[in-house]
This record gives sequence, C-alpha cells and structure tokens, in this order.
Amino acid sequence: MKLTTIIDIFNKKILTSQIIFINAWVRNKRDSKIGISFIDIYDGSCFKHIQVIANKDLKNYKKDILQLTSGCSVCIEGIVQKSINKDQLEIYAKSIKIIGNVFNPETYPIAPKSHTLEYLRNLAHLRPRTNIIGAITRIRHFIAQEIHTFLSQQGFLWISTPLITALNTEGSGEMFCVSTLNFEDIPKNLKGKVDYKKDFFGKKTFLTVSGQLHLESYACALSKVYTFGPTFRAENSNTTRHLAEFWMIEIEAAFLNLDEIILFAYKMLKNIFKNVLGRCFDDLIFLEKKTNTNLINRMQQFIVSEAFFIEYTEAIKIINNSTNYFKSYLNWGEDFSSEHEKYLSDIYYKKPIVIKNYPKKIKAFYMRLNQDQKTVASADILLPGIGEIIGGSQREERWEQLNLRLKENNLNPENYNWYQDLRRYGTVPHSGFGLGLERLLSYVTGIKNVRDLIPFPRTPKYANF
Amino acid sequence: MKLTTIIDIFNKKILTSQIIFINAWVRNKRDSKIGISFIDIYDGSCFKHIQVIANKDLKNYKKDILQLTSGCSVCIEGIVQKSINKDQLEIYAKSIKIIGNVFNPETYPIAPKSHTLEYLRNLAHLRPRTNIIGAITRIRHFIAQEIHTFLSQQGFLWISTPLITALNTEGSGEMFCVSTLNFEDIPKNLKGKVDYKKDFFGKKTFLTVSGQLHLESYACALSKVYTFGPTFRAENSNTTRHLAEFWMIEIEAAFLNLDEIILFAYKMLKNIFKNVLGRCFDDLIFLEKKTNTNLINRMQQFIVSEAFFIEYTEAIKIINNSTNYFKSYLNWGEDFSSEHEKYLSDIYYKKPIVIKNYPKKIKAFYMRLNQDQKTVASADILLPGIGEIIGGSQREERWEQLNLRLKENNLNPENYNWYQDLRRYGTVPHSGFGLGLERLLSYVTGIKNVRDLIPFPRTPKYANF
Repeated sequence: MKLTTIIDIFNKKILTSQIIFINAWVRNKRDSKIGISFIDIYDGSCFKHIQVIANKDLKNYKKDILQLTSGCSVCIEGIVQKSINKDQLEIYAKSIKIIGNVFNPETYPIAPKSHTLEYLRNLAHLRPRTNIIGAITRIRHFIAQEIHTFLSQQGFLWISTPLITALNTEGSGEMFCVSTLNFEDIPKNLKGKVDYKKDFFGKKTFLTVSGQLHLESYACALSKVYTFGPTFRAENSNTTRHLAEFWMIEIEAAFLNLDEIILFAYKMLKNIFKNVLGRCFDDLIFLEKKTNTNLINRMQQFIVSEAFFIEYTEAIKIINNSTNYFKSYLNWGEDFSSEHEKYLSDIYYKKPIVIKNYPKKIKAFYMRLNQDQKTVASADILLPGIGEIIGGSQREERWEQLNLRLKENNLNPENYNWYQDLRRYGTVPHSGFGLGLERLLSYVTGIKNVRDLIPFPRTPKYANF
Repeated sequence: MKLTTIIDIFNKKILTSQIIFINAWVRNKRDSKIGISFIDIYDGSCFKHIQVIANKDLKNYKKDILQLTSGCSVCIEGIVQKSINKDQLEIYAKSIKIIGNVFNPETYPIAPKSHTLEYLRNLAHLRPRTNIIGAITRIRHFIAQEIHTFLSQQGFLWISTPLITALNTEGSGEMFCVSTLNFEDIPKNLKGKVDYKKDFFGKKTFLTVSGQLHLESYACALSKVYTFGPTFRAENSNTTRHLAEFWMIEIEAAFLNLDEIILFAYKMLKNIFKNVLGRCFDDLIFLEKKTNTNLINRMQQFIVSEAFFIEYTEAIKIINNSTNYFKSYLNWGEDFSSEHEKYLSDIYYKKPIVIKNYPKKIKAFYMRLNQDQKTVASADILLPGIGEIIGGSQREERWEQLNLRLKENNLNPENYNWYQDLRRYGTVPHSGFGLGLERLLSYVTGIKNVRDLIPFPRTPKYANF
C-alpha cells in the first residue's frame, strides 16, 4: 500500500479518480444535516490542508466519523477530485479508519482555534501541530538545507567544531561548565581548590561560545570551511533575542579580506531569501498576515540591494547628530547599544547596513588591526527590525600582531599556542563571519521572540521538556 | 582578480593557455640543476595536487622560490598546460608571490612524509594539512550533505532537538552535567543537598544522549523528521569506537513499522554509498591503499544487497552452536557482546545483517512490545568490520503499554508526562533509528579509530585544543 502525502496531491503528482491512501491528523470537522462530514486534515508535508468528504454511507460513519475530533489520527482511502463550487482539490473518502483518538477531546490543549505564542511555548511537545509552528518548522528546515547546499556548491566544507572545550574563545562571556564531578561532594586538591584532574576530561571544560578558532585551523589547510551547530551562552538575558542554546553558522575563508567576506555573506543571504520565497511561499503568506509584517517585500528588496558600508566613526557622528533621539553623546571608542543600531538601520538609513572598522578596544583579540592602529577589520550587518544578524572580521594573520593583541587583552599567549601555530606555518589572510539561525529566522518569519523559532528553547530558569 | 581552485582545473573549467591566479600551500618542492623548480601545491578543494613549474627567469627565483619549503602559502599567476611526458595538467608560473613562510622549516611538524595517525592526533590543528585528514574531511562533509539532501528529498524535516536537557532518555547511561554553579563553593539547601534552584536552569541539567523523545513529538505532528547534531556520553570507554562527543543522525517517521524503517535505513545507506563513490573517488582510492581495506568493493556490494533479517532468538542459537568460537553459552535474554556481533556478521554470515526482536529486558522502555510479550520491535544493523551501525525500533504508541513499560523500568511516569501526551492525543504507529556519523565514516574510509574521523576528538582525560 503506497502512501500519499498532501503535498503530492497539491503538486499534482496524483491523478484525479486515482485511489489513494493517506495518513493524517484531523484539524477540524463539520457535519452537515444531510449526512455528509467535511474533515480538514494535515500531515505536515506542506502548509495546505485538504478537505475530506465523508458520506453517511461509510459503514463506520455514525460510530467513528461523527465522533472524530481535532487531533485524531486517521487513515483515509479515497479519490482526489475537484470540489463542486470552487476550483479546489478534495478527497472523496471510500473508507476512513481511526488510528488514534483524543483522550478527553474537550480538554485537548491544541483545539483548532488561534492560540497565543506564549500559551504554545509551554506546550512545546504539541505546538508543532499548529499552523504557525508547522510553518516555522518547514521554513527552519528549508533555510538550514539552503545554507548547506549553497555553501557546498561554493566549495565550503562542513567542519564539526567541538562543543566541549577547555578554551574560552572570546576571552570573556558567561559559559556553562561541563562536568561529571559529584556536585554533592566536590573533590578538592591539597590547596583546597576543586580537583579538576578528577573530572572527566582531567581539566575544567565548558560548552563552546564559538567554533571560530577551531574553524580557522581548517581554513588554513582546506581554504573554505564552515560550521553549523549549537552554541551556548550562560547569560542571564531574559529578552526576546537571546537563548542559552541556539544554532549558529560560522564561515571561514582563506585568502579573503573583510569586504570580500561581507559581500559573500550578502550573496548567501540573497540566495537564502530567493529560495525560501520560492519554496515556502504558502508558509510565508500565512506568517505575513499573522505577524502583520511586510516579510515578502522586505526579502525581495534585500535580494536586489547592494551592501551598504559605513565606517564606525561615521556612525558615531550620525548618532551624535540625532539629538532628537538620544539624550547622551557617544564617545569614539564606545560600543553601540541595540537602540543605536535600531536608529541607524531602521530610522536613519531605513535599510540594511554594514558598520565596519570598530575600535579595537571593544572587539576580540583575533580581529586584524587596521593601519590606523586604533580600529580592527570587523563588520556587523544590521537589518531593520532585527538589528545585528551577522558579525564578521578579517582575522589577524600576522604572528607578531596577534601576540601583542593577546597580551593587550590580558590573555595568556601560551593558552593560544596552537592558534598561533596557524600564523607560524604558512599563514594566510583569512576572514569569516557568524550568523545566528534564530535571528535569521526572525527576519524571515516576522516572529519576534526567538523562543518560538527553535523547537525546545532553553533560557534562564527554563529547560522544560 | 578572480581566483581559481585546483578542482576547477581538474574539472576542466579552465582553458589551457588561460591566465589564472591560484592561492595554495606548498606540499613539496624539487629543484632541478638547470634552474627549474617543480612545486607541488594543494588548496583543499580536492584530493589531487597540481604541479607548478617555476623557471629561474622569475625575478624572485633565487630569493623566494629556492627558499620555499613545505607548508608555505603562495599566490601563483600562471597558465594551465599539459605536461610534456605525461598527460597531466600543470601550471606554468608567470609569477609566484610568497604569502606566508614557515618559521623554522626543519621543525615544521607536518613535513611531507607519512605520519602515523597517533602522531597527528596530537596536532589536531595542523593535521587537516595532510592528505589523509584532508580526504577524511571531504568525505565527512560530503556524507553529511548527502544525508541532508536525501532526507529532504524524502520529505523529512530537520529538527534541532535540545542539547541541554533535564531528562535522562535511556533511563541509564553516564551523562555530563551542565551547570553555572560555582564549583569552589556549591550552594546547598536546608537539607544539605545541592541547591539546583540556584543553577542557571533552576534544576539539574545534562548534555543529551539522544534527541529521540523530543523528535517523536515532531513526528507525531509533521510525520517525517530527523535530527543531525552532536550527542554526548560520559562513559569512561577508551576504545577505538567511542567518543565523549560525537555526531548522530536520528530519524523518526510516523505511520512506519519496524521493517519499513529498517528498509528505509538501507535505502539511505545505499544512497550515501552510491553518491560518495561518485563524488569522492580519488579520496577513497587513496584511503583504500592506505588502510589496506577493500572499501570500494564493500560499498558496491552493499548497494546491490537486500536487507537480511534474523531474529534475536535465531542469533542466540547460532552463537551457541559455534562452540569453536565461544567458551560460554549465551542464555536467551542476554545481550550480545561486540565479539558475538562480529562473529555473526563477519564470520558466520559474512555480510551485513539485521538482528531484530530483542528481549524487552535489555532494551529501552519506549520500544514497542511484541505479541509474545517478551520481545520488543527493535533492530540493529551490523556491518562486517564495524559492528552495529544503526539501532532502530518501532515505538510503543499504546498509552497503556507505555505506562506499564515505564513502571517496569522503574521510571517515574510523571517525568514522562509530556511524552505520554503524544499517545493520549491522536497517537500513531511510528518508528525511527539512530546512525552514528563517525561509525559510518569508519566503514566508508576504513579508518578504525573514530578519533581520526572527527576534527577535535573528546575522550576521557582528553579535551585538548
């Protein structure tokens, strides 16, 4: 018995009058007085549902069909036909078998009405049954696929950088510890300190905040590489933009400079938007209405736009001239808050912008020092409505400079000995950037809270399911 | 200046006599007495190197070219031509610019000779520069791509199941704890126990050992789903087959039974082998020689084979009849050791086998109880030379049975309340399997130790880099 899916029907892979078998769940049902039931079913294969016509002549009509409620699973044998009044496809049922009922239908948490995203968040195991989370899941899947496919076609190799690390990449930032020590009775050494030699890895280990340094070692051997994996931040940030566990794409390319890597990031984003518009159009139309955001148009605009670069120093001036918006001045050397970024991209330029050449003091040690000796070759891409979506830089490939920068940042060069080896042996100019998957999804779907864009969100005091 | 890669040259995307620019690293160099140097370069884009002909007429011939050593990075301008004596492609250099030298060439750890894998393991940051790790990296990348592409084409959606979890999936197994508590001064509650309320998530959390239960919630809404992500085991196993952090593909499909999901796993493996043979042939030829393993033939054999199923009970009999191999008898109900599995697949059947219907006592609570009430619908795929590569099962979709099985396994049903909801609301038969990426790579590459098949291995007492 070959099974059909709903997308097969809408993609016209099924002939009308052909007998099909389809397994699905009931979204909704309406019973007419003349003994016909109209059952709306979904199977996850696409946004669209399909209507099943069940006639009272079906032998289990009274016993089963009339009792069907939202959420029940069914196996339908039927014929695909065009509906009478509209030019829509529907299934005329020959038989309907109930696979699984719903215990206590009146308390089924996913009744076919509109639920708030907050309500659904506490039902993370059932929310994929809703239209909205179904749409987000398909878009998330499709974007991930597109990233893999695009990068592979561009000659990039996927590298799985380690999740557990003894290295603190940014030289700062809150990290999660990973341990098998017995917390009830932590072993101590002779000095009365935690004896990490007794821990699983024989030293203190963390969950990674970035795979970049490891990725660089592969870029300095195989030229073009990327990671696509989970990343962690133990920040106590209860915002709509932060997760303790999120997915990040990091790209590293040998022989590219800052402008080249940012132009490549643009090319990648355009490719994603172009293809997601082609493949997930029904999902996007639904989300556009639901979020009241001009999703489709803003992606189409991005596709035809050119990267617009401004210098950090120029951006500071613009902010200091906007006396209507900000009470206090920004000194050169200070970092932008998300309000500043919002002003620049949403209000002043009203378009995506790239801010580049930030002061070295507010950026990481590995970014390449510019000729002015004050700024580094770093750049952030800001999108209206979202803020920073991509952060990139050219890496310091000169061993002497790198060593100085480590010391300036009070990092012990010995801990970065292997990283320095990449500069000792056949060093090359190289650049890279990081793209947070959930923030990208926020731009594509119009959903503001990243907790709705990952299947099981982890945030401060929340690791349910 | 458009850059060319070595694979472009071998794929004939470059015309002979066309001027090209190529960035790469020196693998080896030979200087002839008549003033011509032959420089072997690589850029990671494919297994093949290409030879660069550098003539003494180059203005920096004496100063730079004669000093070049293995590992230096160079930018070459030249013309692609066919070599005189052989029908090979080579680059006739118009200019060669040194990008990065090698500090102390005589101590460069990756000199162009054959190194042992053990030696390279302690140079995880430089080993991608070797032929062998380059080949493995390309194959790892290509297989990951194939899995994503194949599953996407088959209608599966990628779900990122959480890495941090408060749930212990298997009801056993060593797990890593994730925490932000200060280990030097662990907070205690009034009872003198660790006060996990003060921890980041407000409860005890672990690194996941499987995304399956979470994945099931998506399969019971969107039908066909998979995860592809890192997985963790805090087992103190110092073997060639175990990593503390490894990558796993887990697949879950609604409406499929055990045999159907195993046949699907076969279809997926065949597809991977077929495409890896097509795309990574040079890498495989090299690895076949290097490992002295019949890699290509065994994949070709697999592609034309049919899944061969045997019952656990039958397998027990075979082992107990093989008195030459095993000293002690196995009782029905005992699990196979890896030696037993090796005997069945490598010696007795001499081919890949599927063992199915294991005793419920040695399998997890979520596997579907068979009619005999003693065995569960589980199956392992064993490959000669590798052992278990895939473990799958049909899941218990009947709420009453699941509840009984939880209790039998001394698990608190309340902790699995959300998981039980999947059976309370429109339950469906569903099945899935897990495939370890590094074990699959071991079969494809012939490399025995999984530490050589992941960029930065994590094992007991080892989290270097």
